[in-house]
Amino acid sequence: MTYRIEFEPVGRRGPCLAGNSLLDCARQLGVDLVNLCGGGGSCGRCKVQVVAGEVSAVTDSDEEFLTPSELAEGYRLACRTFPLADCKVRVPPESLSTPQRTQVEGLEAHVPPEPLVRSYAVHVPFPSLDDLRADAERVRESLQAQHGVVTVSVEVAVLRELSPRLRDQKGQLSVSVRREAIVAVGRTVGKAQRPYGLAVDVGTTKIAAYLLDLESGATLASQGIMNPQIAYGEDVIARMAYASGDPAQAVRMQELVVDAINQAAAQMCAQAGGITGEIVEAVVVGNTAMHHLFLRLPVEQLALAPYVPAVSSAMDVRACDAGLNLAPGATVHLLPNIAGYVGADHVAMLLAAGMHQMAGVVLALDIGTNTEVCLANHGRLTSLSCASGPAFEGAHIRHGMRAAAGAIEHLRLVGGQVEYQTIGGEPPAGLCGSGILDALAQLTMAGVVDRRGRMGDHPRVRGEGGDREFVIVREDEAGNGRRAIAITQKDVRELQLAKGAMRTGVQVLLESNGLAEDEIDQVIIAGAFGTYIDVASAIAIGMLPPLPLERFRQVGNAAGMGAKLALISGPQRAEAEALARRVGYIELATVPQFSRTFAQSMFLGQDLFGTSNHRVHSPLDSSAQR
Amino acid sequence: MTYRIEFEPVGRRGPCLAGNSLLDCARQLGVDLVNLCGGGGSCGRCKVQVVAGEVSAVTDSDEEFLTPSELAEGYRLACRTFPLADCKVRVPPESLSTPQRTQVEGLEAHVPPEPLVRSYAVHVPFPSLDDLRADAERVRESLQAQHGVVTVSVEVAVLRELSPRLRDQKGQLSVSVRREAIVAVGRTVGKAQRPYGLAVDVGTTKIAAYLLDLESGATLASQGIMNPQIAYGEDVIARMAYASGDPAQAVRMQELVVDAINQAAAQMCAQAGGITGEIVEAVVVGNTAMHHLFLRLPVEQLALAPYVPAVSSAMDVRACDAGLNLAPGATVHLLPNIAGYVGADHVAMLLAAGMHQMAGVVLALDIGTNTEVCLANHGRLTSLSCASGPAFEGAHIRHGMRAAAGAIEHLRLVGGQVEYQTIGGEPPAGLCGSGILDALAQLTMAGVVDRRGRMGDHPRVRGEGGDREFVIVREDEAGNGRRAIAITQKDVRELQLAKGAMRTGVQVLLESNGLAEDEIDQVIIAGAFGTYIDVASAIAIGMLPPLPLERFRQVGNAAGMGAKLALISGPQRAEAEALARRVGYIELATVPQFSRTFAQSMFLGQDLFGTSNHRVHSPLDSSAQR
Repeated sequence: MTYRIEFEPVGRRGPCLAGNSLLDCARQLGVDLVNLCGGGGSCGRCKVQVVAGEVSAVTDSDEEFLTPSELAEGYRLACRTFPLADCKVRVPPESLSTPQRTQVEGLEAHVPPEPLVRSYAVHVPFPSLDDLRADAERVRESLQAQHGVVTVSVEVAVLRELSPRLRDQKGQLSVSVRREAIVAVGRTVGKAQRPYGLAVDVGTTKIAAYLLDLESGATLASQGIMNPQIAYGEDVIARMAYASGDPAQAVRMQELVVDAINQAAAQMCAQAGGITGEIVEAVVVGNTAMHHLFLRLPVEQLALAPYVPAVSSAMDVRACDAGLNLAPGATVHLLPNIAGYVGADHVAMLLAAGMHQMAGVVLALDIGTNTEVCLANHGRLTSLSCASGPAFEGAHIRHGMRAAAGAIEHLRLVGGQVEYQTIGGEPPAGLCGSGILDALAQLTMAGVVDRRGRMGDHPRVRGEGGDREFVIVREDEAGNGRRAIAITQKDVRELQLAKGAMRTGVQVLLESNGLAEDEIDQVIIAGAFGTYIDVASAIAIGMLPPLPLERFRQVGNAAGMGAKLALISGPQRAEAEALARRVGYIELATVPQFSRTFAQSMFLGQDLFGTSNHRVHSPLDSSAQR
Repeated sequence: MTYRIEFEPVGRRGPCLAGNSLLDCARQLGVDLVNLCGGGGSCGRCKVQVVAGEVSAVTDSDEEFLTPSELAEGYRLACRTFPLADCKVRVPPESLSTPQRTQVEGLEAHVPPEPLVRSYAVHVPFPSLDDLRADAERVRESLQAQHGVVTVSVEVAVLRELSPRLRDQKGQLSVSVRREAIVAVGRTVGKAQRPYGLAVDVGTTKIAAYLLDLESGATLASQGIMNPQIAYGEDVIARMAYASGDPAQAVRMQELVVDAINQAAAQMCAQAGGITGEIVEAVVVGNTAMHHLFLRLPVEQLALAPYVPAVSSAMDVRACDAGLNLAPGATVHLLPNIAGYVGADHVAMLLAAGMHQMAGVVLALDIGTNTEVCLANHGRLTSLSCASGPAFEGAHIRHGMRAAAGAIEHLRLVGGQVEYQTIGGEPPAGLCGSGILDALAQLTMAGVVDRRGRMGDHPRVRGEGGDREFVIVREDEAGNGRRAIAITQKDVRELQLAKGAMRTGVQVLLESNGLAEDEIDQVIIAGAFGTYIDVASAIAIGMLPPLPLERFRQVGNAAGMGAKLALISGPQRAEAEALARRVGYIELATVPQFSRTFAQSMFLGQDLFGTSNHRVHSPLDSSAQR
């Protein structure tokens, strides 16, 4: 028994098996509904409106997250709703996880290209009764004679296409060599085919992919796409739980991300006038969970204390083993992980930012659901990860949403009024991360919330106790019967936890190095969220230490840049490995003063750690063994 | 529309799609019918008897190969016969390619085991907040601390099982290392798990597989099985044509042989009390066509002049890439090929026979459809291949059959009578190779056939001209209404071509080395056929040079032995590579006096090359470039 379901306004329609939820159906049809809990009815984010057709009864979860008027209008949580007939379902913008913008730009560092794979145009003589050498040997010996390049082997996948290609192309061959092995053969156009490289930063939410010319180091194309694993939970915990469920689910998680990369690679190649078979090497970075799910490594031990990775060293894996459709003998290189929650993307970020070469005291943050923080103290690096949670990505925030059309991305309180700006200039649908941050900063500075986060009185504050909320957009201001947009007392608590975690990370690193906040010479903020935030707002709520604005640098997708560097340069790759070994790792759970620091960090305002707390000598110099 | 077909006496039954031939149906049901032409109706070997049910009309091919009385009894060629109803089909023994005996025994050479993979019992500490190293790094560092063994990587397939295994086994792990990479992990039983190795000789007809203990070098089990590719043609030409048909057919050819090896490996492991996941390395040898089909390499160029291989160097391929179900990181090593028709099995044979270390003049032959011959002249090796054809395997011989039950394997002419012995003591069903050879030798010595092969008069000779035949078993002698068994004039011609080709090979090698026959100190005869033949018969017809019998050595499956040596010893593997490079290869097509030599070689009798032909200085010293 199947029903026909139509999702609007995205315009997807298809069958839904009886017994499947609307969320299951949306996943199958490629409609990316936001959901944090993996379909467990506990996050309340997969809200949809059933506009036609019959569905199962309202559940407790629906009543918990939806207002009576929403329920009356047919709003339901997709994960709790089972069609009983053909249905038409409207997906409100805030429930759709496909964002308006993804982050592919980052700082550009320039290193001379020294790729591991090089390509040569070779003329290979035809076999004859006087020259009975095998095809592979004729190619290898021609390569040596014409270019002085010695090889010892040919990948079996290359051998499977070498003989027919040699004859089709009348002996004119482009030959790509990596570490004395022939890893690809292709067409020639007078000279050797330009070897492509693929750099990928697999984020929990977004994937940034870049196509590079390995010889020049130039970026030929780039693409930002959603990580389709998001359909199985927005955070790494939910996805690891899903992948641990059974082997087929682990395969599914791998296929989702690999297919997305393959698709991006194909589109970028088309843009550059080539094909994916010309991509001879790839570098992939990601947090440790993304790294493991990409390689289909076990994640059970990563999801449980003490959260150890299956592997931390850098790896060379054959692209085909990872499911990537590149040149038959292509390799995918994975930068090293540092710990369970400090992954290869952090190493890539440090490499791109040049943290290991920086003089003075430099702090680098990659803000996300997990925020990785590194402190470089005159060349000595220490990193940690704090569970900042997804609040600044709009999760667990009543009117939070992704950075999609209609999201309020910046706002100011002017007099009693709120001035705001939305993405795409669309009517306001909710608040994205930078908007949420601005809102809390404005409320803090205006004294609407106090240092402890309690919401006081204001013409725009309504409700009582835990239900108090500050109305940013009133129903009458929203127009067209849209809902109001507010920041609730509960939202403020969530944001305090999030920003408190980050600030704790910074403070622990300072204390472990015996440093005071004002000794930080530079703060590097990486990642998509970090690119769009107003640093002054972040300082105002005490998320970042109170330093002069000129000491902050928002560098965009530094992890993606690091992946590019490692792609085009063998020495950069070696540097990344050395760097990963050099980084001291602190496990926050082992820090004795953690609870006290965390409690202080949750205060709202600029001066959280009085001068009396400065220059505490720390017992943390012996950081945990990796 | 499908029909139900039952094959007797093998006892297989199953459906046959309308439009499929009985041969197609037999293939699908795993009934291995002999067929040389790949189902083209031109070899006449897939004879079956339809005992019940309706089939398509008698064709020209049926009439060509079957007698009117056979046709009347329901005999048909399976490839030309299409069921029109449910049928019961009897398969006569001579049409069944599953043999009574396969050759797995060979000479035993003893080398000290120096395997490339070694296993260690490692105790790995549990992770904790004080030891957050990744699982792979904890294993590698424990291995180094406990055994002084340094590794640089862990195969990704091993990583996929390492973490759960580490926890299941409470940190007690058997770790197998190959060239600084961890290629397998397993259980420990006090000490490290014994690492298994697999050696395989893939013959065109038979596959010989051996399970070895890599540490002791002992053979734990062996198995001889049919090469299931035989269902697609008995010779390499038919199979290469099939594999070239389309990619799915190439995959099919690979799967057939790989599945057979996997099955043999599983059975041998069970015999030895282990599992295939404990096989950490394999060595596979075969002729160049078998080598290519096993790796699914292109064979188009191998099937067409000048018959060049896709690759000739030795190869290390991951077992999983070849489809073998061994330890996750296991490697399969393939010995080098020498030329299109002188493959890795020849190299293995030379290695096992120690041809490269032999003093004096030694001739080695591996007799088969293609016969490879090598002459060692005081350490200088020259090899060639001659297209001897399958006549000595019973093909193209009226009453020829495989070495299966009921085959006449030896016979003598005593007075006017024929004395014979059959395999298994069964009633005579036909002649296998050694029986055919004896028959021709007896006819030659008795003067029934003359030097030119013409059949003269004898009480047992009947028929006229090309239809003359020498009756070995008369209808009345066969009993039970069985058919007579005879050697025909046409058979004699086929055998002259076959033995002439082999003798030409020997003669060309002698001439190219400026040697006379009687300067040969030793003749090594390898392969299944060579094991069972009567050397005196082979000399009598002029297949082998007339030397004292004590100079001949029948060594059995030397190629399989060579595979074993390469499996247990890295130095032996290196020696095989050096050996392959040292072998001079002669392409018979380039030998000027080929036609004259071949014409002389076809004569029957001992003295084919008068002393006047000895010590001809040859222009072949510059053998063709490989």
